[in-house]
Amino acid sequence: MVVEAPVASLKAVYVAEGYENNPENHAVLAELKTKCDKANAIYEVVADNVFKSVSDTQTPQGIMAVMAMPEYSMEQLLAGDKTHLLLLESIQDPGNLGTMVRTGEGAGVTGIIMNKTTVDLFNPKTIRSTMGSIYRVPFYVTDDLGATMQALQRQGISLYAAHLKGQNSYDEEDYTKACGFLIGNEGNGLSDEIANLADAFIKIPMEGQVESLNAAISATLLMYEANRQRRKSN
Amino acid sequence: MVVEAPVASLKAVYVAEGYENNPENHAVLAELKTKCDKANAIYEVVADNVFKSVSDTQTPQGIMAVMAMPEYSMEQLLAGDKTHLLLLESIQDPGNLGTMVRTGEGAGVTGIIMNKTTVDLFNPKTIRSTMGSIYRVPFYVTDDLGATMQALQRQGISLYAAHLKGQNSYDEEDYTKACGFLIGNEGNGLSDEIANLADAFIKIPMEGQVESLNAAISATLLMYEANRQRRKSN
Repeated sequence: MVVEAPVASLKAVYVAEGYENNPENHAVLAELKTKCDKANAIYEVVADNVFKSVSDTQTPQGIMAVMAMPEYSMEQLLAGDKTHLLLLESIQDPGNLGTMVRTGEGAGVTGIIMNKTTVDLFNPKTIRSTMGSIYRVPFYVTDDLGATMQALQRQGISLYAAHLKGQNSYDEEDYTKACGFLIGNEGNGLSDEIANLADAFIKIPMEGQVESLNAAISATLLMYEANRQRRKSN
Repeated sequence: MVVEAPVASLKAVYVAEGYENNPENHAVLAELKTKCDKANAIYEVVADNVFKSVSDTQTPQGIMAVMAMPEYSMEQLLAGDKTHLLLLESIQDPGNLGTMVRTGEGAGVTGIIMNKTTVDLFNPKTIRSTMGSIYRVPFYVTDDLGATMQALQRQGISLYAAHLKGQNSYDEEDYTKACGFLIGNEGNGLSDEIANLADAFIKIPMEGQVESLNAAISATLLMYEANRQRRKSN
């Protein structure tokens, strides 16, 4: 992930001594040094015990970077008719959030909107789960998800809420125009307040005795259904 | 999950004292006692510190059960023309495996087949991630995944491998007849040996710079595409 970092936001790279001493890593480190030069960023080798005490993982890989957090305006998440948003209410699991960012990039979302009570996008576990997509998927954290939804709707973006009360299956709506999908908290789903602002409820059919799916799994099915429809309509 | 346990496999229930003393839990415990009577299972209240030392979680919920592990023959995973299998090679993350079992039940799989180097289905984290689906989804652990695949193919079951070399998108094949989906290890994907035994490679289209999706996410898209096609063809 450090090798993939955009030059513009790279501030510093720290390498563990043991990592540097392994000849297998020399090619990667040469690439990183060049990158740091271009970025005018610090490049420093530190003792293994120092590296370990700074890292938040049990078995750190040996490279660490300091980067500027990206910031986007709401406008940067919109792409006219092609707008494809994921809107998250109070997602709590960092791995779930990171997986949604990664899958969102794959499905072609134009941005991800989160309320303030969603887990921090810059939680180390979230960042790792994005597998680099954190660098590329525009996001926006809103103080007032309801007001943000209404602003999007005024711009003609249809918002769909994954909801047990949905009449139509998720594959029975048309997502070829500007749209967004609302996914709620892992334990409680969407709040009534937010769900009721959606243009439509949609349901994911479930067989057996399954009552709900994991939040990242639900988001995947909706985002990739939009992707599928848009591929077919081209 | 303990409340949902099938009576036939319930052997013992242990309840933490603190949990039993909370009046809010009396209804659940009454239901569990009745279940234990029916199952001829042990029901025992234990001191909180004993409960905590036996539990593998930091903040145990207060109910624990001992259950017989279900066992299935390969035949129990097959449903003629409706066969819909998930075949896993060396999945390592217990949460990923559990999520696949849960989502698999939702998508209507008739069974899940794993090779021996897939993480233990009875890993506590896997069991929790299944959200109860572990009780209901037939599974089979094979010593020789390749030989198992060939046996399935002889019965007319088409096996599709999610693979970067796939020609067709996953939504361009017909899954309305007996079929199965192969998902490989999180880091390395499917081994060549296993992938080459598949009837066809399929790819999941990915936008941006995404190179692969999480294993459970890929499995979800394939299993639900089969679900979608089968719903439409009814």
